[in-house]
Amino acid sequence: MQQVERWTIFETTLNGPDSGNPFTEVELIAEFKQKNRTVPVDGFYDGNGTYKIRFMPDTKGTWTYTTKSNIDSLNNQTGTFTVTPATGNNHGPVRVHKTFHFQYEDGTPHYSFGTTCYVWNHQGDTLEEQTLDTLKNSPFNKIRMCVFPKHYSYNRNEPEYYPFEGTLENGWDYTRFNPAFWHHLEKRIADLRDLNIEADLILFHPYDRWGFKEMDAETDDRYLKYTVARLAAYRNIWWSFANEYDLMKAKTEQDWDRFFRIVQTHDPVQHLRGIHNCRQFYDHNKPWVTHSSIQRPDPGQSPTWRSQYNKPAVDDECCYEGNVHQGWGNITGQELTKRFWSGFANGGYVGHGETYLHPNDILWWSKGGVLHGTSPKRIQFLRDIMEAGPGPIDPVNIGIVAAGIPNQYYLAYLGPHQSAVKPLKLPEDTSFKIEIIDTWEMTITSVDGTFNGTFDLEVPSKPFMALRITKA
Amino acid sequence: MQQVERWTIFETTLNGPDSGNPFTEVELIAEFKQKNRTVPVDGFYDGNGTYKIRFMPDTKGTWTYTTKSNIDSLNNQTGTFTVTPATGNNHGPVRVHKTFHFQYEDGTPHYSFGTTCYVWNHQGDTLEEQTLDTLKNSPFNKIRMCVFPKHYSYNRNEPEYYPFEGTLENGWDYTRFNPAFWHHLEKRIADLRDLNIEADLILFHPYDRWGFKEMDAETDDRYLKYTVARLAAYRNIWWSFANEYDLMKAKTEQDWDRFFRIVQTHDPVQHLRGIHNCRQFYDHNKPWVTHSSIQRPDPGQSPTWRSQYNKPAVDDECCYEGNVHQGWGNITGQELTKRFWSGFANGGYVGHGETYLHPNDILWWSKGGVLHGTSPKRIQFLRDIMEAGPGPIDPVNIGIVAAGIPNQYYLAYLGPHQSAVKPLKLPEDTSFKIEIIDTWEMTITSVDGTFNGTFDLEVPSKPFMALRITKA
Repeated sequence: MQQVERWTIFETTLNGPDSGNPFTEVELIAEFKQKNRTVPVDGFYDGNGTYKIRFMPDTKGTWTYTTKSNIDSLNNQTGTFTVTPATGNNHGPVRVHKTFHFQYEDGTPHYSFGTTCYVWNHQGDTLEEQTLDTLKNSPFNKIRMCVFPKHYSYNRNEPEYYPFEGTLENGWDYTRFNPAFWHHLEKRIADLRDLNIEADLILFHPYDRWGFKEMDAETDDRYLKYTVARLAAYRNIWWSFANEYDLMKAKTEQDWDRFFRIVQTHDPVQHLRGIHNCRQFYDHNKPWVTHSSIQRPDPGQSPTWRSQYNKPAVDDECCYEGNVHQGWGNITGQELTKRFWSGFANGGYVGHGETYLHPNDILWWSKGGVLHGTSPKRIQFLRDIMEAGPGPIDPVNIGIVAAGIPNQYYLAYLGPHQSAVKPLKLPEDTSFKIEIIDTWEMTITSVDGTFNGTFDLEVPSKPFMALRITKA
Repeated sequence: MQQVERWTIFETTLNGPDSGNPFTEVELIAEFKQKNRTVPVDGFYDGNGTYKIRFMPDTKGTWTYTTKSNIDSLNNQTGTFTVTPATGNNHGPVRVHKTFHFQYEDGTPHYSFGTTCYVWNHQGDTLEEQTLDTLKNSPFNKIRMCVFPKHYSYNRNEPEYYPFEGTLENGWDYTRFNPAFWHHLEKRIADLRDLNIEADLILFHPYDRWGFKEMDAETDDRYLKYTVARLAAYRNIWWSFANEYDLMKAKTEQDWDRFFRIVQTHDPVQHLRGIHNCRQFYDHNKPWVTHSSIQRPDPGQSPTWRSQYNKPAVDDECCYEGNVHQGWGNITGQELTKRFWSGFANGGYVGHGETYLHPNDILWWSKGGVLHGTSPKRIQFLRDIMEAGPGPIDPVNIGIVAAGIPNQYYLAYLGPHQSAVKPLKLPEDTSFKIEIIDTWEMTITSVDGTFNGTFDLEVPSKPFMALRITKA
């Protein structure tokens, strides 16, 4: 019997009609069953008379499936396969954990350290492979990337593939998807998966000269269903409904609500769902939003967003390290490092981006390539500290602002200020050891002795210090 | 005939009763006349049967005076004196100039570079003289200082003098001022004057254990009139009605309005009048306020305050360079330098303070002493640049935020960001030279060539740069 590893992709291919318009005329789903459980999964047309069904099994053991279609040759096809345990770095999809955090489905913690390469997947194989190589040695475990190509400053090149049949000059046939485009996108998502990187896949965005930002409702909906049918089986997908949804003037709030509900209805895996703002926040309280995906320069506001939405707060765009003239893309590596610490030490998550001018306009934030900045290695240092900790941390007051697990562990970021002393208020009846972290120099220095209760701690009178306080 | 230099103090002493309570029972004013002009000036009791009248003549030539009193020996005393031209650094009192700026009465520009030593004048002669020595070689031409002593962290010492007769233990006789206190205060104000430093004299403040923050209305009013009678003749006085007026819970807004009106009515010189907030701003639109005196961390907001109040915007407290644990007192010298530039290059004025911990609690912000920080020499560098400029500068857009004089001169601060290029929009028909200022390294580098119209200027990709753009 066919064997498939848990949380990988079971795929079956069927042959059917290639006449008419298979994208609109052929209906195909499969029901995957294990014991009393049935999971309906949409199939999709992949060109050349080929139809596919992809399924990510989330439990071990034997599964069966039966197809249903309005086409005889695709209807009532059945199969059986066995799901084997996950191996290696396969921990399953990322889920919300303890209201404000994330973990993989197998319980492994996931501290979200995202970066942004909006259209790295539209740059041709040479650059794309360089990007993957860079990511492999980077601190990042999530990447914000667009399905559609991007039109913007430093982004004037044409993509290699387009999602629909047709051309920019002669128009698109929005009823026919271009399989080559999707094969390429899938390959890149799989590449990311193999690097343990979540693909925070941006479904719509406003930076467009091709028309994809203002398709009609029928096209939008078909596009979403097709995307879900093709990609939901990749365990490392997060659905990001938009980059800067509020700049997409052709869409209403009702449109966004509908998009969420379509994906929520059709995605068998129930991947994470978010939507990213420019100025105005979407109402992240809506039930189909799993986490707030935020653009704001101060991730230290995480406690506000957490309590406002009661979901994980991910500041996906807090400005980028770089030197372009736009204010969102010219903060220093020191400033971005500060913002990371400020977010994490307030119970939030923060995303990276880099916008250093390049003679060929290869700016990481959009096209990938290599990293030039001073923040990534500091972000890795922070990630190492988070992963060495006992678990997700939440805001807690210990005389100063911190995040932690009461009576056990605290991480306090002292920020750009340079106080020489910090008045701490630790629990009276627990003894703690304290380490002083220089977040910029990446040093960790133990303070002699153990501590409890209320006292003044001497700290180096310089900016960017943090404290790690651990039960002795 | 007695000769007095313009804008210095003409003082006459009269002998009168020392029985009863001369502070409350004796009325004394003098009318100073020159040609058709009459200036009424309040006299004051200085102890030991001595009464004084102080007058700051603001025009040259012959002046006469006649006293009026309810006491015969003080009534109808007359005199004549000649006012000679101002010499040396005597430029008269500071006045508002061109709505948003300041100049001395003789037309000399005054760019306000303030510092803060709240109670330097309550520390005894040794430390006070050290403070004067420090100020002499500092970039500061204004100092925020309190009449009353201060009770606060790092401020637990008793002052040498108290403003009223009595003791803390046995209570104050609020109807009797203590001449020794006032002699000392006057001496220090005169010392500042001789260093060309404006005394931004804080009349009330909330940090008090002696009762001065909650005197009754009659006492408050008598205190204000007495203060004005004694001090208004010092040309370097600015009246600051409060430090953090909104923390003085015993006072209402009506009290503050009344205080302003009392001083406005009695001050013959019409010195500048401001009032400083903690959280809530006083309504600086009120007619008796000459400039907004602000506590806010971002002096880059100056354009907002300017347009809100149509008066000079002085951010007197934007946090202090130092290392105390309180957030208002532990920013770096780099950050304070940044805030200075941000304020000045937005048409505002900014004040300094320093709070480095000291083994004997001698923190500059409160007690004076010596300066330890890295910002003062950068503030001097900025002051030199301001004083080398053609005059006061106002917000103007040249593609980027700047302040300047249209078609003539612009100062643009590029801030903590590190863009490598700035898109400038200068007038088309004027040719400009451009200098790049490193505000932290204190270097000024000319850019080759001349510039006009719209173009991208390459700038060093590092924080804290500024541009000086001058008509060629």
